[in-house]
Amino acid sequence: MEELLKKILARNKHLTKQGKVADYIPALKKGDPNDLGISIFDTKGNIYIAGDYDKKFTIQSISKVVTLMLILRDWNEEKVFRKIGVEGTDDNFNSLYKLDMPHIGKPANPMVNSGAIVATSLIKGSSSEEKFERLLNFFRTLTLNDNLVVNEEVYLSEKETGDKNRAMAYLMKNKGLLQGEVEEILDVYFRQCSIEVNCKDLSNIALVLAADGKNLSTGEEIVSKKIADIARTIMATCGMYNASGQFALDVGFPAKSGVGGGILGVIPNKMGIGVYSPALDSKGNSIAAIGVLKDLSKELDLRIY
Amino acid sequence: MEELLKKILARNKHLTKQGKVADYIPALKKGDPNDLGISIFDTKGNIYIAGDYDKKFTIQSISKVVTLMLILRDWNEEKVFRKIGVEGTDDNFNSLYKLDMPHIGKPANPMVNSGAIVATSLIKGSSSEEKFERLLNFFRTLTLNDNLVVNEEVYLSEKETGDKNRAMAYLMKNKGLLQGEVEEILDVYFRQCSIEVNCKDLSNIALVLAADGKNLSTGEEIVSKKIADIARTIMATCGMYNASGQFALDVGFPAKSGVGGGILGVIPNKMGIGVYSPALDSKGNSIAAIGVLKDLSKELDLRIY
Amino acid sequence: MEELLKKILARNKHLTKQGKVADYIPALKKGDPNDLGISIFDTKGNIYIAGDYDKKFTIQSISKVVTLMLILRDWNEEKVFRKIGVEGTDDNFNSLYKLDMPHIGKPANPMVNSGAIVATSLIKGSSSEEKFERLLNFFRTLTLNDNLVVNEEVYLSEKETGDKNRAMAYLMKNKGLLQGEVEEILDVYFRQCSIEVNCKDLSNIALVLAADGKNLSTGEEIVSKKIADIARTIMATCGMYNASGQFALDVGFPAKSGVGGGILGVIPNKMGIGVYSPALDSKGNSIAAIGVLKDLSKELDLRIY
Amino acid sequence: MEELLKKILARNKHLTKQGKVADYIPALKKGDPNDLGISIFDTKGNIYIAGDYDKKFTIQSISKVVTLMLILRDWNEEKVFRKIGVEGTDDNFNSLYKLDMPHIGKPANPMVNSGAIVATSLIKGSSSEEKFERLLNFFRTLTLNDNLVVNEEVYLSEKETGDKNRAMAYLMKNKGLLQGEVEEILDVYFRQCSIEVNCKDLSNIALVLAADGKNLSTGEEIVSKKIADIARTIMATCGMYNASGQFALDVGFPAKSGVGGGILGVIPNKMGIGVYSPALDSKGNSIAAIGVLKDLSKELDLRIY
Repeated sequence: MEELLKKILARNKHLTKQGKVADYIPALKKGDPNDLGISIFDTKGNIYIAGDYDKKFTIQSISKVVTLMLILRDWNEEKVFRKIGVEGTDDNFNSLYKLDMPHIGKPANPMVNSGAIVATSLIKGSSSEEKFERLLNFFRTLTLNDNLVVNEEVYLSEKETGDKNRAMAYLMKNKGLLQGEVEEILDVYFRQCSIEVNCKDLSNIALVLAADGKNLSTGEEIVSKKIADIARTIMATCGMYNASGQFALDVGFPAKSGVGGGILGVIPNKMGIGVYSPALDSKGNSIAAIGVLKDLSKELDLRIY
Repeated sequence: MEELLKKILARNKHLTKQGKVADYIPALKKGDPNDLGISIFDTKGNIYIAGDYDKKFTIQSISKVVTLMLILRDWNEEKVFRKIGVEGTDDNFNSLYKLDMPHIGKPANPMVNSGAIVATSLIKGSSSEEKFERLLNFFRTLTLNDNLVVNEEVYLSEKETGDKNRAMAYLMKNKGLLQGEVEEILDVYFRQCSIEVNCKDLSNIALVLAADGKNLSTGEEIVSKKIADIARTIMATCGMYNASGQFALDVGFPAKSGVGGGILGVIPNKMGIGVYSPALDSKGNSIAAIGVLKDLSKELDLRIY
Repeated sequence: MEELLKKILARNKHLTKQGKVADYIPALKKGDPNDLGISIFDTKGNIYIAGDYDKKFTIQSISKVVTLMLILRDWNEEKVFRKIGVEGTDDNFNSLYKLDMPHIGKPANPMVNSGAIVATSLIKGSSSEEKFERLLNFFRTLTLNDNLVVNEEVYLSEKETGDKNRAMAYLMKNKGLLQGEVEEILDVYFRQCSIEVNCKDLSNIALVLAADGKNLSTGEEIVSKKIADIARTIMATCGMYNASGQFALDVGFPAKSGVGGGILGVIPNKMGIGVYSPALDSKGNSIAAIGVLKDLSKELDLRIY
Repeated sequence: MEELLKKILARNKHLTKQGKVADYIPALKKGDPNDLGISIFDTKGNIYIAGDYDKKFTIQSISKVVTLMLILRDWNEEKVFRKIGVEGTDDNFNSLYKLDMPHIGKPANPMVNSGAIVATSLIKGSSSEEKFERLLNFFRTLTLNDNLVVNEEVYLSEKETGDKNRAMAYLMKNKGLLQGEVEEILDVYFRQCSIEVNCKDLSNIALVLAADGKNLSTGEEIVSKKIADIARTIMATCGMYNASGQFALDVGFPAKSGVGGGILGVIPNKMGIGVYSPALDSKGNSIAAIGVLKDLSKELDLRIY
């Protein structure tokens, strides 16, 4: 298996030259475009790693899956989806025009920025510090990694340049779709996006999702089966932004990407995958990571559709 | 199994009272809102039927899956998806505003009307008669039903009232996204929507998709595995219009609905399902049919996500 | 005065090289880009002409002003403006996306294509022939020119290529904003756009508007003062499409342009102007004609604002 | 003349019952809906007043005309209109969706909120305090009223509830259409909207515009004739938001409304008008003030079109 991974990485290495490391946040530009790594944890306890599997990067939008799981623990499903939709969209991940239309009453889904900001606002806690604290602890539980921290440089950079997110948040607040202080909500949001992980951390989160919400080592239920089902399903239809349909065709299992270059993939009841390569395509997804997942899906017959 | 189906139908019968039979086409109003039927064909050769499984209804948008398969046989995948997108959308199935934006170059996907019209235009044939002939034959091959015909009353009704589809088609033609004579293309489109089927016909189509493109009785490959993969995947992300995400959450397998009241469902490598109940929700999907599929999915553990 | 006109034409002649003769209709491409002519009729009975004042061109969108006057004679103001708005718009003249929004209930104004198509549909008459006959007669009355005819080549060309207008019309019909047969309404619309005029014809129409609806030679009231007021006002706010605001700044009196290269200008109580030069800017307005009107406005102090 | 004004006020008094005092800002709700006043200063030095002409109200959007004049003094016309459009729009005054479209590069005009915010950002000054100081002084010069101050309660209320304006500003900043610190720009914007005036103050501003930029008492040129021309023209095409076209039809001269209930009207070379009545229609314009201007226009034959 590790031979296969090495082969697949080698085969896709040239794709790292094609994309562009995210530059909308100055601190992100520092990612090494040559990096390419993968880590797979299966439900039988096997671990497979290859390439730059231990390089750190910020989790970015992949955090949206974790926040979704947390608010589904904090609140019931009905309440959450009264405020955030569950439909895929062909608009960009940071689009906001539709929220200005009188007939639109909530963001499309929790994987686009507007929906993720509402999701973050729903984390329980008496202050934004407490909310983030709870979220970070939840991340640590999912990754089995107590050392997980925020990359302060990226966080400050996000905060400084996050004007499109501010626009969305203020628009939603004005329309009654978002409650609370915008800057406080965004502060938690920018922090969650700036948590530093590596491929193994992603695999751990993904494995919990593959195992219907359980920590397989301890047998502990971290989230209910229902929440794991929801998270995987929304990843399947919305996880790769407005390239989710293409990804479903090309790869064929639930996944979530981040502009840090990571992709978290889940094969239900089989395995959790983390891939990393920071050079992105025009829709904000890692080109080489998608290439790797495509090959992996074909070689191991992982399509679920 | 047939006991289970009867129980599930009975449990969901009350939902037939909640929706509204489609009335945008006068001829559709004639559907009996009390009808509820199901038919399941599995890959082992078993057939399960219950309720109004042999009532006829027009296939409507479910035909879009068949047209997609045909054009993917007629042309290569690249050509087809250069003209039609593959992304889910949170816009209505008959929305057209986005096509008027300068930065939009193709319909969102082949399951919304604009994309389906482009798909129909791509059927090979020297005349619209020949195109429809080829499509109808393909339908008959898929359903193993040589008696499949167009309901002339519905067809004429569609043709008379299809102004929103005309608007879309002329807009796309003007923008160079659609080639050919609009009224001829729409004529084929209205005919394909008016083909009359019953639950068993849907099951037969679905079974071919479940069996990776094969006719399981004869072993014949009707479409390639690749085409079956594509069709199932696009059904999964776009098959229930802008309720595809909700359906993925509630039911969890590829499906396609039509305003005639039918839903075609596919469990990869397992079974093909046809359900029928004409009372629709506000997004054009059959309420009771969705209820039935939801129960079935839970009872038989059919979620793929 | 004619000296002044010659000087102004000469000064703006170089602008004829900058624009592009309309090519969206094949027949329009034949316009000679070097043409530049003007004709001014004042309320005291003076006539001033210069340049290619007698060259023929199709009236195109300038006809929208005439149709508006006719339907305001046919129906009362309330009825007309319940179906067509009176607001300027920053969208293109052939934009239709907004009409697909649930909260939009009528076209922006009668000078953009969607509004003009609704206007044409409101002309009284038992058939499209009779409607056009009435409109053509009204044109002849306004221009004092009984020889006014349709340029058949342009008309057929418009009809063949008018798909964006068809898209608009079918969309509005579907939404209940347009009554009648789309192709019949468009047939009248395409004919009205293809009426052939010269600068003097435009001046005659404009003079009636300048004279509050009267034929100054005979004293006859062709339209009421109220209708003339409305027509001039809507020309002022919407007459140059989404360049109406810029034109108001640069020139400063009511005007209406057409893609044939003509502009009709009105100085209330003073004069009616017709200018012609077929090379257009990107918004469909004649570049040299605007240049001429700008100079004329400055030299004769014609701003009304 | 004052008799006429009294008669017109009496005739329109009942309209004060029809609208609704603005409530989007809590502090605005305090306006007395029965108030109705008018003040007219003509270019010959006559002053006519009637009704509640000396009641104070906040200037709100009428300030946009003053800011426009100031930035046209601070910068040349080209620079200003490279950043702000000059076209009327059929969208709401606080619409922002269009700014999220890739093909849109500036706000529609300086009278809608997005354009006004850009205008405010262009006021010269090394700090927001200095910018507002310069603007307030300019207001005092135009109104000949050194006592003009900000209503602090309204200002704080605007600041607290101005989330839609924040959304616009952050969106424009993200897109590079707005330079500077959003909260600082909005602070100046909220202050300018909260300046307290009465009808006489509005008449004074309007008289300067009627007199081509001059203070008629002293002969001093406050702004150039060109700037006065621009301001009047943009008021004519965009001054009453997406009811500017209707106002042009019904009243027929340049005007600017504010949600405080004031309307400033200008009859070029003749008079400056201030009207006040706080009950608004659904588009944010004072119902009774429009009624008064309509009657006045008819009685004194003030239409310019």
